[in-house]
Amino acid sequence: MRAGPSQEEIRRQNLGALLRYVHVHGATSRAELTTTLGLNRSTIGALTADLTTAGLVSESSARETGRAGRPSLVVRPESERVYAYAYSIEVDRLRAARVGLGGAVLDRRETDRPRGLTAEQTVPLLADFVRQMHGKVPADSVYVGAGVAVCGMVRRDDGLIRLAPHTGWIDEPLGRALGRELACGAPVSIGNVADVAAFAEHARGAAAGCDNVIYLYGDVGVGAGIIAGGRRVTGHGGYGGEVGHMVVNPAGRPCGCGSRGCWETEIGEHALLTAAGRDTARGYDALLTVIDAADRGDARAQAAVRQVGDWLGFGVANLVNIFNPEMVIFGGSMRDVYLAAAAQVRSRLNSIALPACREHVRLRTPMLGEDAALIGAAELAFERLLADPLDAG
Amino acid sequence: MRAGPSQEEIRRQNLGALLRYVHVHGATSRAELTTTLGLNRSTIGALTADLTTAGLVSESSARETGRAGRPSLVVRPESERVYAYAYSIEVDRLRAARVGLGGAVLDRRETDRPRGLTAEQTVPLLADFVRQMHGKVPADSVYVGAGVAVCGMVRRDDGLIRLAPHTGWIDEPLGRALGRELACGAPVSIGNVADVAAFAEHARGAAAGCDNVIYLYGDVGVGAGIIAGGRRVTGHGGYGGEVGHMVVNPAGRPCGCGSRGCWETEIGEHALLTAAGRDTARGYDALLTVIDAADRGDARAQAAVRQVGDWLGFGVANLVNIFNPEMVIFGGSMRDVYLAAAAQVRSRLNSIALPACREHVRLRTPMLGEDAALIGAAELAFERLLADPLDAG
Repeated sequence: MRAGPSQEEIRRQNLGALLRYVHVHGATSRAELTTTLGLNRSTIGALTADLTTAGLVSESSARETGRAGRPSLVVRPESERVYAYAYSIEVDRLRAARVGLGGAVLDRRETDRPRGLTAEQTVPLLADFVRQMHGKVPADSVYVGAGVAVCGMVRRDDGLIRLAPHTGWIDEPLGRALGRELACGAPVSIGNVADVAAFAEHARGAAAGCDNVIYLYGDVGVGAGIIAGGRRVTGHGGYGGEVGHMVVNPAGRPCGCGSRGCWETEIGEHALLTAAGRDTARGYDALLTVIDAADRGDARAQAAVRQVGDWLGFGVANLVNIFNPEMVIFGGSMRDVYLAAAAQVRSRLNSIALPACREHVRLRTPMLGEDAALIGAAELAFERLLADPLDAG
Repeated sequence: MRAGPSQEEIRRQNLGALLRYVHVHGATSRAELTTTLGLNRSTIGALTADLTTAGLVSESSARETGRAGRPSLVVRPESERVYAYAYSIEVDRLRAARVGLGGAVLDRRETDRPRGLTAEQTVPLLADFVRQMHGKVPADSVYVGAGVAVCGMVRRDDGLIRLAPHTGWIDEPLGRALGRELACGAPVSIGNVADVAAFAEHARGAAAGCDNVIYLYGDVGVGAGIIAGGRRVTGHGGYGGEVGHMVVNPAGRPCGCGSRGCWETEIGEHALLTAAGRDTARGYDALLTVIDAADRGDARAQAAVRQVGDWLGFGVANLVNIFNPEMVIFGGSMRDVYLAAAAQVRSRLNSIALPACREHVRLRTPMLGEDAALIGAAELAFERLLADPLDAG
């Protein structure tokens, strides 16, 4: 029901559109910007001048274009100078990165995460990373803000971690702790790791240009980041995408959530290890060991991979019927399971999903690899800059 | 990546915002429009004048306001003069209505739909309805276009019905047939009945003001219209929302789709009738008979209702984990099943869905009743008017 924008809002939209374009596509000629954004040359010139003054982009002559005439100026993001901090809080480790406008990781840190650490205890470790990285930041840099990817259910309003069963967090005030230690005058955005990684793959990865995407992410549990009609589906409170707790097997095993037969009891790390007769093993490396064994011809490991692959395809078929996506991306440990059992996944998908819902769906692995969580967390921070470049810059 | 709008686009947006406001809220004072749309009084005056000239709204003095001073002018939609045709193609019947701007049904027709009728054979019956209704349309009226709700999977691009198992349609060119017989110079939009009814309940029904909604619709089968972040989730080709074919019981009954244990095999019309020992009965009236019998104390009917209610709650819990909605609406035959088994539904939801995902979810029945399909179909047509009032008007 919103009315049309004012002159000032239009300028802000145009600045954001230009900056977003070079943020996603990198160095771009003024001529291409004029065509793509549908603005005339003088407007592009004025917008570029404003963004240059704010230190967000720079301009230079294009290199040899092979064409006659005056070379077009090229606008590029100030990737070394404009940056966000990105954090990833995982079950087994903590990561931090300084990410430049344009999506390049400029610096990074990583450490093991001792099990049992609370949110309050975790944040100082991230703050240490920032202190270490901050020494190398050029003096005239522009800090945009920070974003965090966390394996848990994040309340959108205040970054409270409602439930992160695999780190043992219940109602941990991560947002508050981060705001106190790491805000540095700019807001901190927090998102579930699957949502954040989906955001990254959609912005500049495997799903670039796709408007309907399911990004399935596995570590100990399984969640999804969902893009529908080009927008993230995060639900009323921010808890959407808990596909790991879609019950697929009412006669199945008890789940840590208190229910029974959740999808993650059939496709999670523990399901594969149990099926392979390695009930006592834990962790991603143990999962890879099973997949390696299957690859080397171990019959029990092969059967385990097939069984989990069947259930993976089964649940994907359900999601395909619900969302009619054009792409499903398998991330985290789901990438390895999918690659080992692609035939099972595709076969189940074909036999269960409705033809119209599945006909154009592509099954893919991530392009950004492990960096998706960090790049997506940085994108959360860049979103604010892109919404209003000169206010945040 | 779109740039900010031109002056002309802004004017179009403002015209659309004003017209949408009175379309949804009815007669509104200029003072309220000024406040709500954030535009100054002279702009509101100019926009109203343009819309009045186009015959889309009218103005009059407000009745007694109880306040001193000059009475504010009231802007109202030209509900009798600006209209869309709406059609609903159902398993057992065909309906058509003339719907005025503002959502009022001005005229309606209905007939039984003989089973076995193709799309080509159906359209002439709808065209008959239009001829009957058209005689009563005032001479200076503005026809906006038509919308259709159909129980089947609709290809967004051209209105081909890919699959409508319960009418027996496979790849029926409904869009083409409608365009030929009913376009009358304006486009015809086609949507799945659950999507269309969800749209209506979101625009002016039970879900008004809710941004994350699942509208579950049952007739012979079961589908859903989904609103996420205020926008319809229809998927890549338009086939999203096929929640009836989410497999919930891998050990369950074969489904007409070729799979097994689909949710609709546990909660559809046939599931309730079978559980009640009435395998040979069919149709909505037969379903109501079982619910009535349960209400009167028939033990077998009660057990059947409880069983179907359990499965209904089970699948709703899955959807709540995936979407974290603020409202689930039970429409069509799901309304009756829900009302008869609300305790089972709520109990299953509470035991299966994650607390954070379900904590704010309200379970509701539709406000628009059977008219949701017709009103939603008309909304499809009004959408085009609201996007560009003076072009379409």
